[in-house]
Amino acid sequence: MSRIEKRMAGMGLVLNPPKAPVANYLGTKRTGNLLFVSGRVSEKRGQVGTDVSLEEARLAARDTMLDLLSIIKADIGDLDDIISIIKLQGFVNADSSFNALPQVIDGASELLIALYGEAGRHARTATGAAELPYGATIQLDMVVEATD
Amino acid sequence: MSRIEKRMAGMGLVLNPPKAPVANYLGTKRTGNLLFVSGRVSEKRGQVGTDVSLEEARLAARDTMLDLLSIIKADIGDLDDIISIIKLQGFVNADSSFNALPQVIDGASELLIALYGEAGRHARTATGAAELPYGATIQLDMVVEATD
Amino acid sequence: MSRIEKRMAGMGLVLNPPKAPVANYLGTKRTGNLLFVSGRVSEKRGQVGTDVSLEEARLAARDTMLDLLSIIKADIGDLDDIISIIKLQGFVNADSSFNALPQVIDGASELLIALYGEAGRHARTATGAAELPYGATIQLDMVVEATD
Repeated sequence: MSRIEKRMAGMGLVLNPPKAPVANYLGTKRTGNLLFVSGRVSEKRGQVGTDVSLEEARLAARDTMLDLLSIIKADIGDLDDIISIIKLQGFVNADSSFNALPQVIDGASELLIALYGEAGRHARTATGAAELPYGATIQLDMVVEATD
Repeated sequence: MSRIEKRMAGMGLVLNPPKAPVANYLGTKRTGNLLFVSGRVSEKRGQVGTDVSLEEARLAARDTMLDLLSIIKADIGDLDDIISIIKLQGFVNADSSFNALPQVIDGASELLIALYGEAGRHARTATGAAELPYGATIQLDMVVEATD
Repeated sequence: MSRIEKRMAGMGLVLNPPKAPVANYLGTKRTGNLLFVSGRVSEKRGQVGTDVSLEEARLAARDTMLDLLSIIKADIGDLDDIISIIKLQGFVNADSSFNALPQVIDGASELLIALYGEAGRHARTATGAAELPYGATIQLDMVVEATD
């Protein structure tokens, strides 16, 4: 078992089977040592500030990151082969009265830091979206650096 | 005539002259073998789910991708010099009741795969936008890998 | 004093102290010669087209870019070490009747060109956002190339 998956298990988290893309694209695409990971939406549906609480949205962000990691594992074979998390983009389906988008996306960022330590710290942008595919609460994509 | 443009012609598609940026930015910018392509909006105006149908929006996504390819050709000289399509970002001006954003952006992705085969498959994020420049239906940007 | 900061001073602009990230992420993250800069929102609050004028929004875009540059300086030591501005992503908190998003983000792009000349010209995407963190008017992130 890989070092990263051991840490996950120690946190009581499990990696679900990788989800297939919902349309005509790849889960990840590589160029050199950079891996671009496609956007994934949360299983959680609804808008933060109306249907969904801050704490539910944070959990949805964490669970969506687990889905991204499962997809990366399927593509590169081992989560230990991620050297560094570079950039995370998070979209939050939020009511215009809800502004704490950074706190929502922290649910994903804090998982990366717990798993990868300093190498898991990353650049990030958290933005509101008018509408996400399937009415989802969260959408995440990212760029990571992998071993040769 | 380049191999890629021959395929386009075989599909009954023509490359329009490259459109100039609408403001103070470049059509593409290169770093190493990566080419970052600026966001372009569709000629098609209006919101999917209210003014614009799914099929019209798919066509608008395909036509916007043709515009991106025309801009890339102007900057690097030959579409055959694209080695790999890395990441596509698609924004859709959509009513909050319309969730099939991935199917809309497939209009662009399927063109890339038809032209470039396996190398045309890419990572992707499809997101709703509250508002796009000039009230356009679609906005696309991308990262591609080019030859030296 | 660095060459770039001298130019800033000549334009009557000052670099404020770098702002700390508002949540659990880094201001910038590096991979090879690429520096990914986290999204920063403007101090300016409110929606363009209703509360905020085009000219105010352009200034907010310029000032947000100054904040990004201050964060980059804190991380890499000297703004002269930026070789090239690659990609700028701008989100504008805009009313659906306001379409001149490119003119707003020009406030940031024109500063980069004034400071870095041809190397400051960049690929760009300007998009509307339903909601930005803390109700801000502008959000910018970018990718730049730095010296070794």
